[in-house]
Amino acid sequence: MEITKLTPKQRRGLVVVLTGYGKGKTTSAMGMVLRAVGHGMRVCVIQFMKGDLYTGEWDGVKLLGDQVELHVTGKGFCGIQGNPFPHAEHRRNAQDAIDLALAKMKSNRFDLLVLDEINNAVHLRLVDSDQVLTLLAQRPERLHLVLTGRDAHDDVVAQADTVSRVDEIKHAYRRDIEPQPGIDY
Amino acid sequence: MEITKLTPKQRRGLVVVLTGYGKGKTTSAMGMVLRAVGHGMRVCVIQFMKGDLYTGEWDGVKLLGDQVELHVTGKGFCGIQGNPFPHAEHRRNAQDAIDLALAKMKSNRFDLLVLDEINNAVHLRLVDSDQVLTLLAQRPERLHLVLTGRDAHDDVVAQADTVSRVDEIKHAYRRDIEPQPGIDY
Repeated sequence: MEITKLTPKQRRGLVVVLTGYGKGKTTSAMGMVLRAVGHGMRVCVIQFMKGDLYTGEWDGVKLLGDQVELHVTGKGFCGIQGNPFPHAEHRRNAQDAIDLALAKMKSNRFDLLVLDEINNAVHLRLVDSDQVLTLLAQRPERLHLVLTGRDAHDDVVAQADTVSRVDEIKHAYRRDIEPQPGIDY
Repeated sequence: MEITKLTPKQRRGLVVVLTGYGKGKTTSAMGMVLRAVGHGMRVCVIQFMKGDLYTGEWDGVKLLGDQVELHVTGKGFCGIQGNPFPHAEHRRNAQDAIDLALAKMKSNRFDLLVLDEINNAVHLRLVDSDQVLTLLAQRPERLHLVLTGRDAHDDVVAQADTVSRVDEIKHAYRRDIEPQPGIDY
């Protein structure tokens, strides 16, 4: 079978927001990483509020070679029961991550920049929504920008090209099934 | 920073359904492929109704090495304007894909099996919902099974562990922005 390759008349970067409370936001961003790399694109992923809890994509992206950079930042979910770090420390981490995002964006070395859990970081006041809007305003025209996390800010949604809300219809953990590798992390 | 690796007391396969009309179902499944491979798992992806239209994940998964098998089946979206193939031919293709899925499942060589667009194939009567239920019933206990596509069948949703519905809040194509590589395909 002959393969048909689409080529858009106009190449442009898209701003994609993945929000909502269901499973499939970070995972979807990782799918776009895989897809973009398939197109030969260079990708930078910055994960906000991630902490030290291992997740399979950290090793997965290594297999994609030096087309992909992944930066894990933060000290776990702010405000979640048992998280011992003060808000100021979470905010400092998130602010560093924003600086990193700006630097990566300005480097012009990437075709896709993923800011994982940034919506949540805004919601928790670790990042100001204006900082995200500034980032969007400074985005190079051909850079794809993917923003994930629940509770996406309305002003960010307003600026995005494509926005999906992922709702939970059901989730295994509600039946006390432990998180499973490969699916949940 | 030291990394904490969760290990569930009980390892079990999950049935995950990704449905709805928004962007992020196939992409999310691809994210789970990347994550699973990071855990050293073996993955099989079978894409239904895919046709000949190139998408970046076809080359992306090649970079993940022989941990991942990807099978593209079908002749494009059945019932979509301009698709020249009769329903019977779409159905024959989808039935072959179901046979392939059963064979891959029974081979016990995989930790994750993705049946991409199968929900849609059921909705379009290329596959019977009973065939999917049979597949679920025969699933090895530790195999993760991910089923994507709009209009997931209620009986399949009832059998699943985790179900997300991805809704479109907005999509670039509604503003006549062409599909862009790395994001849309």
